[in-house]
Amino acid sequence: MSALEPVGEGFVLADVDPKSTPGVADRADAEAQLEANHDELGSLQERLWAESKFGGTRSVLLVLQAMDTAGKGGIIRHVVGGVDPQGVTIHAFKAPTEEEKRHDFLWRVRRELPPPGIIGVFDRSHYEDVLIHRVRGFSTPEQIEERYGIITDFERELVASGTRVIKVMLHISKDEQKARLTERLERPDKHWKYNPGDVDERMLWPAYQQAYQIALTRTSTPQAPWFVVPADRKWYARWAVQSLLLDALRELNPQWPTADYDVEAEKKRLAAT
Amino acid sequence: MSALEPVGEGFVLADVDPKSTPGVADRADAEAQLEANHDELGSLQERLWAESKFGGTRSVLLVLQAMDTAGKGGIIRHVVGGVDPQGVTIHAFKAPTEEEKRHDFLWRVRRELPPPGIIGVFDRSHYEDVLIHRVRGFSTPEQIEERYGIITDFERELVASGTRVIKVMLHISKDEQKARLTERLERPDKHWKYNPGDVDERMLWPAYQQAYQIALTRTSTPQAPWFVVPADRKWYARWAVQSLLLDALRELNPQWPTADYDVEAEKKRLAAT
Repeated sequence: MSALEPVGEGFVLADVDPKSTPGVADRADAEAQLEANHDELGSLQERLWAESKFGGTRSVLLVLQAMDTAGKGGIIRHVVGGVDPQGVTIHAFKAPTEEEKRHDFLWRVRRELPPPGIIGVFDRSHYEDVLIHRVRGFSTPEQIEERYGIITDFERELVASGTRVIKVMLHISKDEQKARLTERLERPDKHWKYNPGDVDERMLWPAYQQAYQIALTRTSTPQAPWFVVPADRKWYARWAVQSLLLDALRELNPQWPTADYDVEAEKKRLAAT
Repeated sequence: MSALEPVGEGFVLADVDPKSTPGVADRADAEAQLEANHDELGSLQERLWAESKFGGTRSVLLVLQAMDTAGKGGIIRHVVGGVDPQGVTIHAFKAPTEEEKRHDFLWRVRRELPPPGIIGVFDRSHYEDVLIHRVRGFSTPEQIEERYGIITDFERELVASGTRVIKVMLHISKDEQKARLTERLERPDKHWKYNPGDVDERMLWPAYQQAYQIALTRTSTPQAPWFVVPADRKWYARWAVQSLLLDALRELNPQWPTADYDVEAEKKRLAAT
């Protein structure tokens, strides 16, 4: 059971300690639980998939947002990697292409939504359109203001159509980011993970924190809540996101579907071959 | 190192024993190797991905073909599942949609090819157009005849553009299929995996074996060879496909790329933030 509360009334991002580890005793405990829970998570997804083969329309969408190096990739590898890869779709949203720019900002997002039975993961998302767009001025304040409402409407529609939406901000400290970027520069086998643009973004740290504060509080709704996951300790963030996924799937509680064919007749038909 | 020889001159599918286990001592050995090799496979894929971020164009395509219940899904789950899900794309080719039917048979295949750095998996493929199409008469003999050449041309082009192509037929016996279908009917938690159409296809067993014999021998080329993997023992098939993937990736031998930015200058820039 996740120990994290969804973002609600009076939430202040700056009050969340990125080093904190609510809900788990220590690293050994978190890692043991992570490992032990892979089977249940995989089994719940398999049932959700089975259900979808017989008309079920439910799916799960995990939205991951974070500053660079916060560990989105590690979450996908170590948490989502515990599920059958056939039961997962992952989409990393990059800077929009020329074609994507010709459409409204949700166009490319709608194309990547998980089909029934599937856990979809967004590595960045439509929230970039109110985060980097606010910080870098890629859109006008009026456009950004309008988008909070467009997003909550979109997510309400998504939830109504059967998709469980879990939105996670991995929250790291500025010091921890510096340590992780430094490591990428010091290890030749990590050089490929470093991009000079990462430092440019880092210089805008306070503006990003403010943009997150606004986006989180404006778009955390009962049907599609935001969770801020302290992420300075990778083992904690992985445990916490797995807990959120497990909570969601346990609540969906998918069941093996009943055959829509005559089982006894099929047994006879098969026996005769 | 895989013990399997590619399909070549004089190959006879009927001579391959689906119960055989060439190259491995026993089940315990195969399962231990499967587990132990996950890290190397994952690490090789990560290097391939890193390489692609700095201009590399290489990728891997694993084509899986088989009679129903032969274990394609299990291969994806237990072999491909050992790789970071961000490094894998999986596409299951179903009966073509109306839109797909309006295009040539390779149109939908080209859209699902793995991008650079990625291991792509095809669960069924363009080979359906010379397998079920031959058995069911969905295309004329002339069309099917023409396709073998179209396919080998297509795969030559694919290999030339940097994609390593591994084609696997999982080979099960008719008796083993019966046992697996029977289990699906006997266990309510497996009913969803059963489709009455499976028995219809089963009744055409000899025609399918003949279609495979022809397709395998006509399209196994030095650049894109076919491997027939005995699949009555799931633990063997998983070990064998992992070995084929490992062989391919070891041969590609991807390396961590050299930074295309000034590492020392970036260290200073980062230190100042």
